[in-house]
Amino acid sequence: MSQPTTAITPRRDEDFPEWYQQVVRAADLAENSEVRGCMVIKPWGYGIWENIQRHLDAKFKETGHQNAYFPLLIPLSYLEKEAQHAEGFATECAVVTHHRLEAQKQPDGTTKMIPTGELAEPFVIRPTSETIIGAAFARWVESYRDLPLLINQWCNVMRWEMRPRLFLRTAEFLWQEGHTAHETAEEAMVEAKTMHAVYEDFLRNYLAIPVIPGEKTARERFPGALNTFTVEAMVQDHKAIQAGTSHFLGQNFSKAAGIQFLGRDNTRQLAWTTSWGVSTRMIGTLIMAHGDDDGVIIPPRVAPQQIVILPVTPKAETRQEIIDSCEALAKTLRAQLYEGEPIRVHVDKRDLPGGTRNWEWIKKGVPLRVEIGPRDITSRSVMVGRRDQGAKSKESMDKEEFIQNVANILGLAQAALLERALALREANTKKLNSLDEFKAFFSAKEDDKGISGGFALMHWAGSADDEDHLSKEFKTTIRCIPMGDEYAEEGTCFLTGKPSSRRVVFARSY
Amino acid sequence: MSQPTTAITPRRDEDFPEWYQQVVRAADLAENSEVRGCMVIKPWGYGIWENIQRHLDAKFKETGHQNAYFPLLIPLSYLEKEAQHAEGFATECAVVTHHRLEAQKQPDGTTKMIPTGELAEPFVIRPTSETIIGAAFARWVESYRDLPLLINQWCNVMRWEMRPRLFLRTAEFLWQEGHTAHETAEEAMVEAKTMHAVYEDFLRNYLAIPVIPGEKTARERFPGALNTFTVEAMVQDHKAIQAGTSHFLGQNFSKAAGIQFLGRDNTRQLAWTTSWGVSTRMIGTLIMAHGDDDGVIIPPRVAPQQIVILPVTPKAETRQEIIDSCEALAKTLRAQLYEGEPIRVHVDKRDLPGGTRNWEWIKKGVPLRVEIGPRDITSRSVMVGRRDQGAKSKESMDKEEFIQNVANILGLAQAALLERALALREANTKKLNSLDEFKAFFSAKEDDKGISGGFALMHWAGSADDEDHLSKEFKTTIRCIPMGDEYAEEGTCFLTGKPSSRRVVFARSY
Repeated sequence: MSQPTTAITPRRDEDFPEWYQQVVRAADLAENSEVRGCMVIKPWGYGIWENIQRHLDAKFKETGHQNAYFPLLIPLSYLEKEAQHAEGFATECAVVTHHRLEAQKQPDGTTKMIPTGELAEPFVIRPTSETIIGAAFARWVESYRDLPLLINQWCNVMRWEMRPRLFLRTAEFLWQEGHTAHETAEEAMVEAKTMHAVYEDFLRNYLAIPVIPGEKTARERFPGALNTFTVEAMVQDHKAIQAGTSHFLGQNFSKAAGIQFLGRDNTRQLAWTTSWGVSTRMIGTLIMAHGDDDGVIIPPRVAPQQIVILPVTPKAETRQEIIDSCEALAKTLRAQLYEGEPIRVHVDKRDLPGGTRNWEWIKKGVPLRVEIGPRDITSRSVMVGRRDQGAKSKESMDKEEFIQNVANILGLAQAALLERALALREANTKKLNSLDEFKAFFSAKEDDKGISGGFALMHWAGSADDEDHLSKEFKTTIRCIPMGDEYAEEGTCFLTGKPSSRRVVFARSY
Repeated sequence: MSQPTTAITPRRDEDFPEWYQQVVRAADLAENSEVRGCMVIKPWGYGIWENIQRHLDAKFKETGHQNAYFPLLIPLSYLEKEAQHAEGFATECAVVTHHRLEAQKQPDGTTKMIPTGELAEPFVIRPTSETIIGAAFARWVESYRDLPLLINQWCNVMRWEMRPRLFLRTAEFLWQEGHTAHETAEEAMVEAKTMHAVYEDFLRNYLAIPVIPGEKTARERFPGALNTFTVEAMVQDHKAIQAGTSHFLGQNFSKAAGIQFLGRDNTRQLAWTTSWGVSTRMIGTLIMAHGDDDGVIIPPRVAPQQIVILPVTPKAETRQEIIDSCEALAKTLRAQLYEGEPIRVHVDKRDLPGGTRNWEWIKKGVPLRVEIGPRDITSRSVMVGRRDQGAKSKESMDKEEFIQNVANILGLAQAALLERALALREANTKKLNSLDEFKAFFSAKEDDKGISGGFALMHWAGSADDEDHLSKEFKTTIRCIPMGDEYAEEGTCFLTGKPSSRRVVFARSY
């Protein structure tokens, strides 16, 4: 094959952060806009988000939640209520101070837009909606009969990021934020854990990312939460990404917002609340987890298109026949189900050199590429490339056999990505027992172009100050106290020597 | 029947605007927030929006569009480019001037959040995304091969409204905005007309609103558009609501944004663009079109729940049996399709008085209410209320027969709403020929609590100044130059006496 090699420069092992920027660009997922820190999510990237939304939304509804929509702007007074308890509190966020623009001709003939109509009380663009949803809940809840209140919101939020990075950290991003209020602490805890489990299942079975579910230490919790549950992914530079969190907020937020209800015993009580969320950051996680040196690799369950069919038309006289055959195949495939949904198929009929077109789809990471040329028509076969098996994957298959097996092949591709991500994680997770081992683990690869040691499973009984200290010295944090049985064992803390009955996950992180 | 009558106060014919506010509240669709002009869309209202989104989005994709997401903030410089051509231009919008808040203790012990970090260039929250999407298109388009570019965005937008009204006119609202770029004027015009037809079909067949499709006069066009196509609804106070618009923008916007491409003839050319949109205003239109004096009536195709099942459990000992029977029926109904989708069924098991519960669903406008009580269990029957037939509608039906016919019944309810809305429009649309008739039409009901005359079909050959004049004197505008054959006839303009070959629609409007 004489296809032009247009792999990503640099490779992952040369400069992982730069590889990430290049691969996002090459796959046409998103781009920086002229508004600092705000990205444009292009159709191929937004298509992934639409699939994430659709699947998660179905899971939220199955678990009894309803969607609603709350205002974009938050009065400063809401934040002041919270700041009351936090001396020296400052926050990076977009502040709206005026409600009018007026055009003024300048002496040089140009026109300037001047903000006028100063607001008596400024607003911030929501960095999260706890305060404004809390105020609504306080209006809505009167008695225990109004509970539980199970609300989710899909929306945009904004935090003024100084070092933005596409998908992973942007000033504006898209997310969902669940907010619930309950009659008892137990019910709220069940809710927080249920949504934690929904996230873990989604990451594993849809994004093919074998996250470690666990709980945050007090130092790493969402401010105000009594417990924060997290799912932690390892990506290919062996760093951790927090892919989703679910918080048990106790009565702290209902106290601040005044969410009270008349209980079964006729007394006024504070509701127990939770919140939980995932964002477009998941797309960044997916790219870093699965991409290779040729581009992005998208798991079939969330790929905007699962199959692209590429007509190979060397001669004008057979072009129409081949295109018709491609369209007919697309129609047949779209009538089949993969994981309960019609298979998403695109026919790329653009009049471009075959290699160019093929490489575009490799870089975009479409799970299956199917070529049909003149010889395939004669032999009733198709040429199938599985993206998870690398850019060069290409196998001639009987067309009927391919049609019969297509859902199965997509399933194999999905499973292979999960398996590979799991193997990566296992190869780069070590049970260590001493500070020396810990040091060696996180410094050995220090010069290795940003590749971190991985996940260190450590016995831990230290304090928040101890965590601070390790964070400063090694740039590591406790990603989570993991939940699985495999982490439970007796031992002694590697720093303090105190007894410990469970290993925790230390890692560098995004 | 001894149900508590809790109809809406006031009735529609007593005070239509106030009826609207009350009916939105009674149906629990939305509420005002503490942020002036910004609403909270509650689950029942948001559920309608989700259905609107899902159906429209499918139609957008069928017609070749892809979704993307663009930044919320727009640099002032983008607006200055536009303002250059509009002397004295001013606009009500939210202006972001700072990116940081700092807590400062006040002498009285309270904490104030002070905006700091002033931005060198302020931003506005998008009132619409023409400028920012135009800038992206200018980056994306290089050659005719990149065209057409068919993009849609679902998002929130903000305009500082001085007289907000839930759904109809709010500072923040949700919408979709389609933006497309084409190689030729003809293709762009086909696009603008295609989306106009999509809107008309959607309003008619999903929202059961028989809109009049037509074109705006030059005076009423979107600024900068060469043609604006609109769909105009009549609601129950006989006023018009513009329910959706599609604009043929010529090369005006591509000139401002620099959307140029290398043509087939190797010359650089400006693209031809369109834009089109509908918003949460459609929910307000739906309420005003179909609601009655007992609450909202939601057309089945967009109802968050199409059927609510109400267990009637007078005795504790039969309660469980009845609830089980309701759940079983719900499961059976959910397995059936209405218009290609599983039927949406909710079982309301809340322990509330039957009349209270029943009235709640009447006010919420769920298309079918199904009661099952002890006698229904014995007789294998159900009590069915069709919301479109009024709050008192109630018919005992054999359960099996109901199950067999349920999709048909929903279809009849959907059709009845359309038919009634069409009858309303026809009864309040008049072909008039003189200024005297016109005056009488728009003044006769002036004291009739805000009910307008209706749609006046007039021969028209006047100028924009003439339109201004009529607008000032009668608060009427030309809603559209309608497309149908039934409006084509020779005549003379009722104001100028000049010849005219088509009647236009005059009305008061929202």
